[in-house]
Amino acid sequence: MVGKGTLYIVSAPSGAGKSSLISAMLEKNPNYAMKVSISHTTRDQRPGEEDGVHYHFVEKQHFLELMDQNVFLEHAEVFGNYYGTSRVWIEETLNKGIDVFLDIDWQGARQIRKQMPQAKGIFILPPSNGELERRLNTRGQDSEEVIAGRMSKAKSEISHYDEYDYLIINDDFDAALMDFKAIIRAERLKQDKQAVKYNGMLKALLSE
Amino acid sequence: MVGKGTLYIVSAPSGAGKSSLISAMLEKNPNYAMKVSISHTTRDQRPGEEDGVHYHFVEKQHFLELMDQNVFLEHAEVFGNYYGTSRVWIEETLNKGIDVFLDIDWQGARQIRKQMPQAKGIFILPPSNGELERRLNTRGQDSEEVIAGRMSKAKSEISHYDEYDYLIINDDFDAALMDFKAIIRAERLKQDKQAVKYNGMLKALLSE
Repeated sequence: MVGKGTLYIVSAPSGAGKSSLISAMLEKNPNYAMKVSISHTTRDQRPGEEDGVHYHFVEKQHFLELMDQNVFLEHAEVFGNYYGTSRVWIEETLNKGIDVFLDIDWQGARQIRKQMPQAKGIFILPPSNGELERRLNTRGQDSEEVIAGRMSKAKSEISHYDEYDYLIINDDFDAALMDFKAIIRAERLKQDKQAVKYNGMLKALLSE
Repeated sequence: MVGKGTLYIVSAPSGAGKSSLISAMLEKNPNYAMKVSISHTTRDQRPGEEDGVHYHFVEKQHFLELMDQNVFLEHAEVFGNYYGTSRVWIEETLNKGIDVFLDIDWQGARQIRKQMPQAKGIFILPPSNGELERRLNTRGQDSEEVIAGRMSKAKSEISHYDEYDYLIINDDFDAALMDFKAIIRAERLKQDKQAVKYNGMLKALLSE
C-alpha cells in the first residue's frame, strides 16, 4: 500500500542556499518520490523561464477564477502580480505517496500551516552575517545601500525561524544536503507512515 | 552551547537484529556522541561478560538500596534476578549532549515513557515470519517446540509496535542502519535542539 507523501514547507532568507539545496536534493535522488510545487503567477514570463517548470503562467482573469474555485492553498499579491500555490496539485501528488516541497516565505508558510497542520517546516540558515552579506553581494559590486536592504529583509525572514520543525545551518553545502536528506528519510520512518506502507507485512507478522 | 541529548528507547522482537544495529551504529560513528545505557543486574556474571560493559553486576542488597534511593528509571524482576536502568547515569549523559540508547522491551519502554515523555521510541521489525523463524532457529537444530515458543514471544513484542515513534524494517541490514542514522541525525535538527546549540549564532544573525 502507498501511504501519503509529506508536505514540506521550506523557508529561508535569500542567500541561505535554499533553491540550490532543493535542486540538489531532487537531482541526486531521482528515485526518491519527491517533487517541488510550482506556483501559478500572473506576472510576465522572463527570458529563460519555462511555463510549467519555473511557474504556471496564467492570465489575471484566469487566476481570479481559480481563486474563486478555491484552487489555491495560499496566494499573495506582489507589485500588482498574483502568485498562488495549487491545493489540488499538492493533494493529488501527496496522495500518490510523493513528498512535496513548497518553497515559500514565512507569511505563506503560516497560511499553509493553518490549512495543512500535518505539513513539516524546514528553515535554512546561513552560518553568519558575514557569510550572508558575501552571498547577498551577488555581483560583488552592489552598493552598500542595496546590500543593507537585502540584509534587513533577510533578518526579518530569519526572525521567524522558530515557527519551523527543523533548522538546517547551511555552512558546508554537502553537510546541509545530508541534513536535508536525513529529515526526509526519518519522516518516512514515522510509525504512522510505516504502518500504512507495511500494512500487509504487519498483518502477516501478527497472524497466528 | 551544548544542548541536551535525546533518549532513544529501542525495542524489537528477538531476531529483528536490534543489538547488531545498535553495535554497528556506535562502531561506525565513533564521533557521533552516542552511548548505550548499561543495566544494573543482580544475576551472576557469565563467562565472557564484563562488568561495566555488558552489565553493572551488583549484589541484591546493593540493588535494593539503589532502588530505595530512586536511582532506577525502571526495573524488573526476572526469575528472581533484578534488572534496572540508572536514571542518574542517563540524565548525566543526556546533559552532556550525548544521545542515549536504551535497549529494552515494550513493558520497560512504557515505564520509561511515563517518566521521560520526551524520549523517542524506535521499533525494529523483521521483514517476515519466515525470516524471523530462520533467525530464531539460531543453531539450525532447535526443536519445533522451542522455535514456536520464541515465535510466540516475538509476536507478542511485535504487537506493541504502534507505541513507538519510528518503525525500522530490518530486511537489508545496511539500509536499516542508514534508517537508524537518519533518525538520529534528523532528531538533532529539530528546531528546539538547534536553537540551543546555535544560540550564539542566532543572536548574532538577528542583531542589528
